[in-house]
Amino acid sequence: MIFKTGEKYNLTFVVSEAVQQSFVQTFGDKNPLHTDEVFARTKGFKGKVMHGNILNGFLSYFIGEGLPVKNVIIHSQEIQFKNPVYVEDELDFTATVSDVFESVKSVEFKFVFTNTALKTVAKGKIQIGLLA
Amino acid sequence: MIFKTGEKYNLTFVVSEAVQQSFVQTFGDKNPLHTDEVFARTKGFKGKVMHGNILNGFLSYFIGEGLPVKNVIIHSQEIQFKNPVYVEDELDFTATVSDVFESVKSVEFKFVFTNTALKTVAKGKIQIGLLA
Repeated sequence: MIFKTGEKYNLTFVVSEAVQQSFVQTFGDKNPLHTDEVFARTKGFKGKVMHGNILNGFLSYFIGEGLPVKNVIIHSQEIQFKNPVYVEDELDFTATVSDVFESVKSVEFKFVFTNTALKTVAKGKIQIGLLA
Repeated sequence: MIFKTGEKYNLTFVVSEAVQQSFVQTFGDKNPLHTDEVFARTKGFKGKVMHGNILNGFLSYFIGEGLPVKNVIIHSQEIQFKNPVYVEDELDFTATVSDVFESVKSVEFKFVFTNTALKTVAKGKIQIGLLA
């Protein structure tokens, strides 16, 4: 097994204006919390809150492109959103191999997204399979 | 509380070539399982397997645009991928209000994505908060 429990992977992602616009164009979610500065402020936020599922797109990149092997497929994932992400926020992403299931060729990672103020903005787990 | 346990929401999503290309451009995940027909076939699939996180983009649309209120934010979500989704697959999406937490203004939905062959391709849970 190429993956060992405790191994860490680290990446940096930026939720740029371009990434958010592209996400909105792809999926059509123009909810005012994400697109209307004034609405977001009346709800107690510093500005437009970025779509949480942009982070799930980054997870796709991590699994598909950030691992040492390409023969991978996602079986399941879960994410908790802990603090808001704002436009142009730079996020540190760390994933740790939390479990390895040799017999079924499956690997579990725990991950955390942290902003530059060192606040956890999201955390969760993702389980992948290694394709024969 | 506007949401009642047992209420159902239904939408249809198509994982079109355009949606997938746009997802790849946004997040950069060009893993061969998703982009290389021959690679995907050697791994036992009928063709290129669509990124699972495209379905999470559809979930974003459902929460942000498909509910009767706009003052919503996602707290957490989880998804299990049960069967492959191929390009141009039309997916039936059904979400059911599975729990309502009046005191903390939070609502949980269980959801299922089903393809036209009536196979469950993904299922999971999503918890949202209602913003004051």
